Amino acid sequence: MKKQKPLILVTNDDGITAAGIEALVEVMKTLGDVVVVAPDKAQSGMGHAITINSTLRINKVKIYKVLQEYSCSGTPVDCVKFAISKIMNRRPDICVSGINHGANMSINVIYSGTMSAAVEGAIESIPSIGFSLCDPSIDADFTAAKKIVKTITQQVLKNGLPLGVCLNVNIPKIKYELIKGIKICRQAYAKYEEDFIERNDPTGHRYYWLTGEFVNFDKGKDTDVWALAHNYVSVVPVQFDLTNYIQKTKLEKLWQLSS
Amino acid sequence: MKKQKPLILVTNDDGITAAGIEALVEVMKTLGDVVVVAPDKAQSGMGHAITINSTLRINKVKIYKVLQEYSCSGTPVDCVKFAISKIMNRRPDICVSGINHGANMSINVIYSGTMSAAVEGAIESIPSIGFSLCDPSIDADFTAAKKIVKTITQQVLKNGLPLGVCLNVNIPKIKYELIKGIKICRQAYAKYEEDFIERNDPTGHRYYWLTGEFVNFDKGKDTDVWALAHNYVSVVPVQFDLTNYIQKTKLEKLWQLSS
Repeated sequence: MKKQKPLILVTNDDGITAAGIEALVEVMKTLGDVVVVAPDKAQSGMGHAITINSTLRINKVKIYKVLQEYSCSGTPVDCVKFAISKIMNRRPDICVSGINHGANMSINVIYSGTMSAAVEGAIESIPSIGFSLCDPSIDADFTAAKKIVKTITQQVLKNGLPLGVCLNVNIPKIKYELIKGIKICRQAYAKYEEDFIERNDPTGHRYYWLTGEFVNFDKGKDTDVWALAHNYVSVVPVQFDLTNYIQKTKLEKLWQLSS
Repeated sequence: MKKQKPLILVTNDDGITAAGIEALVEVMKTLGDVVVVAPDKAQSGMGHAITINSTLRINKVKIYKVLQEYSCSGTPVDCVKFAISKIMNRRPDICVSGINHGANMSINVIYSGTMSAAVEGAIESIPSIGFSLCDPSIDADFTAAKKIVKTITQQVLKNGLPLGVCLNVNIPKIKYELIKGIKICRQAYAKYEEDFIERNDPTGHRYYWLTGEFVNFDKGKDTDVWALAHNYVSVVPVQFDLTNYIQKTKLEKLWQLSS
């Protein structure tokens, strides 16, 4: 009996025509049957947003010549939900998101639509990976990234992932030959120092653009920030159970409110 | 020397005129100086989204007669960032979000704008709490919730919270006298079974509404779902470090890729 090819769901947050998802689809075509459901426009910074206050539009497209491909007016998480609920005949064997144009290391995992799509896959108990290249350019070179993506996806297809966990993979912006290896990491403790640029519109009313500088407070050598700075690919196992169990136990003792 | 009153940042995701934030502001006025920065419209389900692809508008309002109050065109997380970066003269002593019209137990912590605002506060190292009442009605009765909110906020003002953690507080929809107590919980393992309602617009083109049924797979008696079902207030300590440390160690052994 012929073994069924893996069924692969592909999405992203830069929009269905971004070079990063094109690169991802190219790799996935060599590994299995591909279904693409991705946003019809850039959805960066959408985090785990879902569309509940407005309607969703889904359109069949013919960009990548894969099993099924649709653009979606919603967020990356909407794409995963819609693909699983309405498009795919069976549950995908793997869900991959990206390749993001720009790093999603450290605290970015929380703001990133790329990673939230992978987290949604994990919530659905599907092995899921978010891929990001540390180059925000629209013309980023995905040559090295594609090799890494293939290696890691094959690893996950072969061994699976534990329930409750997906992977956050970041790839440094260097030639493949210069990549030192793949490092399993923790999320660095870092944050953005925000700034809001003030401008006036033509009618004289003020508006703002959110900007911010990424500041790393974490000197650990087991973090994703450290790995990327030292030419490693970083892989962080990411969970959707946000409970802090240590503080749960401490608060139970400290508060003693429930008597 | 007179002790400075606590400075309290208030936000929500149901919009600045919702009854839930009105109730929250009423309580906070009795505890300190209040600054309100909240969305100018409902932002439910926005998760940790931030506004980076479009502009932000901020407007001074006079609704609650507090120290400072602004409506914001962005998400709950935008509100927290803007308040800290541009509005407040000093860092708030506490950041509270809500009171949400509807439960944010279990996996909802990830989709919830209410909770993402609290998580953003925690990222900024500010003690932060998201409050939700298990009643999605626009006319929900916040009488009991206000008493709970006061008790828990006083507790946090007095003792602080550990770095890296905020609180997800859900309050059952019952009379205060029937509330059995406050239980420190973990996030239940549950998810939504999605459905997308199909409709046609007047021109015959299809659109969708995301709906879903909450399904709890978790039989544990230490979960927020259990506590609420048994008339307790649930309090989950929520972290923004999404690293799964157990799987990190396992993957390091299993993959052996970084040689």
